[in-house]
Amino acid sequence: MPELRKDPVSEQWVIIATDRVRRPTDFVRESLPVTPSARFCPFCEGNESKTPPEVLAYRNGSAPNHSGWSLRVIPNKFPVLEVEGDLDREGEGLFDRMHGVGAHEVVVEAPQHALSITELSDASVEQVLWAFRDRVLDLKNDRRLRYVLLFRNQGESAGATLEHTHSQLIALPVVPRRVQEEIEVSQRYFAFKERCLFCDLIRQEIKTGTRIVTETEHFVVVEPYAARFPFETWILPRHHRSHYEDADAHQLKNLAWVLKSTLRKLEKVLERPPYNLLIHTAPLQEAPSHAYHWHIEIIPRLTRVAGIEWGTGFYINPTPPEESAKFLRDAGLG
Amino acid sequence: MPELRKDPVSEQWVIIATDRVRRPTDFVRESLPVTPSARFCPFCEGNESKTPPEVLAYRNGSAPNHSGWSLRVIPNKFPVLEVEGDLDREGEGLFDRMHGVGAHEVVVEAPQHALSITELSDASVEQVLWAFRDRVLDLKNDRRLRYVLLFRNQGESAGATLEHTHSQLIALPVVPRRVQEEIEVSQRYFAFKERCLFCDLIRQEIKTGTRIVTETEHFVVVEPYAARFPFETWILPRHHRSHYEDADAHQLKNLAWVLKSTLRKLEKVLERPPYNLLIHTAPLQEAPSHAYHWHIEIIPRLTRVAGIEWGTGFYINPTPPEESAKFLRDAGLG
Repeated sequence: MPELRKDPVSEQWVIIATDRVRRPTDFVRESLPVTPSARFCPFCEGNESKTPPEVLAYRNGSAPNHSGWSLRVIPNKFPVLEVEGDLDREGEGLFDRMHGVGAHEVVVEAPQHALSITELSDASVEQVLWAFRDRVLDLKNDRRLRYVLLFRNQGESAGATLEHTHSQLIALPVVPRRVQEEIEVSQRYFAFKERCLFCDLIRQEIKTGTRIVTETEHFVVVEPYAARFPFETWILPRHHRSHYEDADAHQLKNLAWVLKSTLRKLEKVLERPPYNLLIHTAPLQEAPSHAYHWHIEIIPRLTRVAGIEWGTGFYINPTPPEESAKFLRDAGLG
Repeated sequence: MPELRKDPVSEQWVIIATDRVRRPTDFVRESLPVTPSARFCPFCEGNESKTPPEVLAYRNGSAPNHSGWSLRVIPNKFPVLEVEGDLDREGEGLFDRMHGVGAHEVVVEAPQHALSITELSDASVEQVLWAFRDRVLDLKNDRRLRYVLLFRNQGESAGATLEHTHSQLIALPVVPRRVQEEIEVSQRYFAFKERCLFCDLIRQEIKTGTRIVTETEHFVVVEPYAARFPFETWILPRHHRSHYEDADAHQLKNLAWVLKSTLRKLEKVLERPPYNLLIHTAPLQEAPSHAYHWHIEIIPRLTRVAGIEWGTGFYINPTPPEESAKFLRDAGLG
């Protein structure tokens, strides 16, 4: 019989279809290419003049916007928000609006034309995590900005338009509604229990074991109890912190390894699937919180999302997380 | 400059990219087929034995599960929920679960193999609306069930697996989270203003005019102010009612015409796009409410939804609703 499970963080009910369990090979999807296309790539080393000027780069003494870098952050050439201007919040009868002030940047993760972050060295992945931190700390100085979305879209059907390995960030003058809800849920939990919801969740998942993919010194990788999507995967820091940018050097070093190994498992089991990765973190201008706990959510794009999900927040998942966790554990790779 | 707009119903902020406006022809998507495939169709008249036994049919005296019908409602052959059994709600530490009790039914909208509901007569479309009502009233008698999702997925990329024109319903033992939120927002608004949010919205949209697609005696069709998707379209009843099943015969007759004409406009302007249609209505077991107002939301599937939307409820729409409303008004077709 199918099961209805409630996610304690989003408070969404999910149908877990336990009868017709779908295995990794049952999903029809785009696999990422193995060999690069012949198209010109503006992200490759030597083509710096084809991108907007960099806002951050890790360089060995070379001049900005020239070759000789290991990572570059550049404004998106077609930004969805613009840095200049005032918010000019105003009402229009029932409606509310403001100018689209914010930032939209691309983290070019390596100078070479790698097709996946898993092809990079652990040190390069670690640089990406530092770049996220550096950009967030810089953007925090702009008091108009209230949230930074840090994300990776991998594969065309997940929304990536260039294949050269990269991440993105969008800095917003509002806290997105779902993030705000997640924070409110964790605050209610804290008010009730005087414990962090995520810390409790980590303890319970470790005890249960069936949904654990990997445990390291600083992180736990789990398939969430009420996973909305097959092979939805969360990376949770063991140490309680509300803000990603407050993670320390030990944690970022460990996270680079954990992230790469988790993505390699997903790539092996699901044959290089398209996916979206998003860092959930507390709002920019808020003080550290005992209630909220930053983490990473990875959603492989294996099934078509039908419209009812958008209208209702109600998901149907054909693969129980206990099954997907087992597939990922059995993949080896650390 | 791009604009940030807040939807008063969902309280989500949406980026409306006013600089690079995308026109209907700019979207790459699947068009619905014009001629039917040669595959066997279990929904066609004469093939009744290939489906589960019907739960409702509009027949002219013919025997159940034989030919001689104008509309049939059948259980989904691969249901995501099952009708038999107890809920058995239980906790598992932090987590909550229950059995997947509910109903999953298919409304076969016509005996002939039409590929779109717009190919049916107005009278046939009206029958579909009556079938929704009849099924909701029947399912309401089952006190375990708290919500009925009434929806249409048109086109493969919107999740439809059979091309014969049909709708679906899923009856749930929970109220989906997003629906619950929409209701709470409208209740807060009512507590503050002593007016219905949707009634106010309709009045303001009629006054503004720029986002109106059609007005009839009983309905207003608008492109919402903070549309999450290009050509997102809402059909709002002028007369305040919280529950779809309380609509009267005049309204359903008018709705059949409005629905068909709206979908024909979308099909003309967007070249038979895939779409999802969902009826938003108040929970089954709740009394009529002054605060909530049932309506229909249609989402053409024109753009890829990248992962940040799921994680954040934050959408980027490249087509301002004022533009899409103009395209739809200019399509003619009533």
